[in-house]
Amino acid sequence: MIKTDILIIGAGPTGLFTVFEAGLLKLKCHLIDALPQPGGQCAEIYPKKPIYDIPAFPEILAGDLVNNLMKQIEPFQPGFTLGERAETIKKQEDGSFIVTTDKGTQHQAPIVAIAGGLGSFEPRKPLIPNIEKYEDHGVEYIIRDPEFYRNKEVVIAGGGDSALDWSIFLTDIAKSVTLIHRRNEFRGALDSVEKVQELKNLGKIDVITPAEVIDIIGESNVEAVSIEKNGEVFQKKCDHFIPLFGLAPKLGPIADWGLEIEKNAIKVDNTLDYQTNIPGIYAIGDVNTYPGKLKLILCGFHEATLMCQSAYQRIFPNKRYVMKYTTVGGVEGFDGSKKEAPKAVVKAID
Amino acid sequence: MIKTDILIIGAGPTGLFTVFEAGLLKLKCHLIDALPQPGGQCAEIYPKKPIYDIPAFPEILAGDLVNNLMKQIEPFQPGFTLGERAETIKKQEDGSFIVTTDKGTQHQAPIVAIAGGLGSFEPRKPLIPNIEKYEDHGVEYIIRDPEFYRNKEVVIAGGGDSALDWSIFLTDIAKSVTLIHRRNEFRGALDSVEKVQELKNLGKIDVITPAEVIDIIGESNVEAVSIEKNGEVFQKKCDHFIPLFGLAPKLGPIADWGLEIEKNAIKVDNTLDYQTNIPGIYAIGDVNTYPGKLKLILCGFHEATLMCQSAYQRIFPNKRYVMKYTTVGGVEGFDGSKKEAPKAVVKAID
Ligand SMILES: Cc1cc2nc3c(=O)[nH]c(=O)nc-3n(C[C@H](O)[C@H](O)[C@H](O)COP(=O)(O)OP(=O)(O)OC[C@H]3O[C@@H](n4cnc5c(N)ncnc54)[C@H](O)[C@@H]3O)c2cc1C
Ligand SMILES: Cc1cc2nc3c(=O)[nH]c(=O)nc-3n(C[C@H](O)[C@H](O)[C@H](O)COP(=O)(O)OP(=O)(O)OC[C@H]3O[C@@H](n4cnc5c(N)ncnc54)[C@H](O)[C@@H]3O)c2cc1C
Repeated sequence: MIKTDILIIGAGPTGLFTVFEAGLLKLKCHLIDALPQPGGQCAEIYPKKPIYDIPAFPEILAGDLVNNLMKQIEPFQPGFTLGERAETIKKQEDGSFIVTTDKGTQHQAPIVAIAGGLGSFEPRKPLIPNIEKYEDHGVEYIIRDPEFYRNKEVVIAGGGDSALDWSIFLTDIAKSVTLIHRRNEFRGALDSVEKVQELKNLGKIDVITPAEVIDIIGESNVEAVSIEKNGEVFQKKCDHFIPLFGLAPKLGPIADWGLEIEKNAIKVDNTLDYQTNIPGIYAIGDVNTYPGKLKLILCGFHEATLMCQSAYQRIFPNKRYVMKYTTVGGVEGFDGSKKEAPKAVVKAID
Repeated sequence: MIKTDILIIGAGPTGLFTVFEAGLLKLKCHLIDALPQPGGQCAEIYPKKPIYDIPAFPEILAGDLVNNLMKQIEPFQPGFTLGERAETIKKQEDGSFIVTTDKGTQHQAPIVAIAGGLGSFEPRKPLIPNIEKYEDHGVEYIIRDPEFYRNKEVVIAGGGDSALDWSIFLTDIAKSVTLIHRRNEFRGALDSVEKVQELKNLGKIDVITPAEVIDIIGESNVEAVSIEKNGEVFQKKCDHFIPLFGLAPKLGPIADWGLEIEKNAIKVDNTLDYQTNIPGIYAIGDVNTYPGKLKLILCGFHEATLMCQSAYQRIFPNKRYVMKYTTVGGVEGFDGSKKEAPKAVVKAID
């Protein structure tokens, strides 16, 4: 059982910044995310695109925003349960909550902050009979660790940035890379399309278009795929079949937690602390709704900050927290680190 | 008469970021500030100190935060009335407001956003008889333009960072610099204290301590000051006497504008748009109060953003604004500039 002060569901920008604000209040956090990496939409959908409305950044790549947040929260040593979806929540007699993931990992905390964005990212799956049978036996929809594919024969399907970029990346690792797409045209960054063309010309990526994988062959693990191209069907031997058709967010199991839902989002009390209808459970960032709500990153930061103050009062009902500016009080990490402004000196001139 | 869409009172971080959010909605802004430079508390009180809780900046100097914001809003060409205090507000028949400063400058806008922080910064004045008579005739409490002192004889009074830093800065410009403080000990950045010591040793700054300026001499302009040191009084010829005893914020005239005030701050409706009790007047950032309010920079950014949406609806009651992510829609400046993410291409691989 993983125990923490604030259990955060969703490691997008909102969830990550919550760790910082909680840390200033000396509260520890643990994050659960269905994706294999932190950063939410920024990391998964548009890491290489610029955002222009993060205050004081005239321009920042979404991926850099996530990296900066990770660096900012480092002193507060957050825990992570990645690649798992928070599935059920149960209130304990002592008022705390136990949240269990689809893989059975259990987490306990007095406060749950849902920062689930548009929902947990779930892969779009191709319509291939029996594909479920091969999941985790050679079929993967998300690449968690590229090393997993070392010296393996890999077939990737898809026509967007993920398919392009992973095909490029895996040429140096896998024994062979085949890229299949049902159109001749790919849609992605110019760089990536050109790089794939180059690697194809060098014989390092086998690009098959317009084509589709229509079947998987193998006893218990993937041994080959059936490919249809221009009405003809042929087989291609491989160890892994990786359909990268994008991830779609689904509010999913959270919708059944007894929370008030409106327009696929969780209703919160924006007059005070972004609390849901269940005391002790907050919803912040894209996942919540209230009058005037804007699904913007900078709004999630504000909501996280106010929410942490309220969580603190809930955990320590009798303590009065006196806010100190970070500039004045510095930042004391749980790792013993301390950042602080250089102090003024009082010194005679003679 | 200066006309604009949103008239912002206070050019601190909140007021500055408002320009950006308004700009995305194609609304123009003009800012009034009592200080000679934008940046509010960050620029005036602690420009060289680090802030640790600006999201995605593990550390940023307050002065750099202001510079970044100025760069971010540049495409939206804000107007500035600096060094003037907003004094009166008058509602017009057409629903717009006219705001007049202490120097008589008039501004008209359908929307007023008060981002006045802790109030307009007013200098702490020394208790010297008749000092008012010499204001703007050789007595200045704020240095607006250092060039003004070229080849002049300058007496600075004060024992903090401002007095130290301006004494250092003016040695290269003024004919002579005298620094007077009523203690031997100065309080400031170690660097600054050491630099003044060095310049004193070189004979470039005349440091007189413990001493006080007790009188000003001159027909209509400052000609000399009387200094008391250890019970003795002597005169020192000079063109300028600059007491730098710090600035204290005063809510000031805004307190009389008919707005609901609580704990020296303006009450707003945080359930929606940070509007005050007077429709069309909003209060955002440190200057407002509502249940759970935190006087933090990141909160001002959120408040400004929601406020701009509401202002838009007020100005264009019949238009429906559809929010576009900056990453997707880019940023179109009023100066004709356009920032946008590199577009994906659709391209065949053959
Ligand atoms: C193309 C694009 C451009 C954008 N441009 C901008 C922009 O310019 N400016 C701006 O402010 N915003 C922009 N946005 C929106 C911005 O990315 C979101 O507002 C932001 O990511 C929300 O952060 P969040 O942390 O609330 O949620 P998310 O980033 O959505 O993160 C939520 C995380 O929670 C996880 N999760 C959800 N449910 C569960 C569960 N049950 N178990 C485990 N994990 C779960 C998800 O997997 C996800 O990783 C853009 C979005 C897109 C897609
Ligand atoms: C030493 C110190 C350290 C701090 N550290 C942090 C920190 O680590 N993190 C954090 O988030 N915050 C910190 N703060 C607080 C932060 O600076 C404020 O929250 C922030 O400046 C508020 O911004 P604002 O734009 O709302 O107001 P301000 O920065 O106060 O700006 C308001 C401006 O309005 C002007 N004004 C007011 N009335 C009038 C008028 N009638 N006419 C003309 N002009 C007027 C004032 O002159 C001023 O320039 C710190 C503050 C101090 C003093």
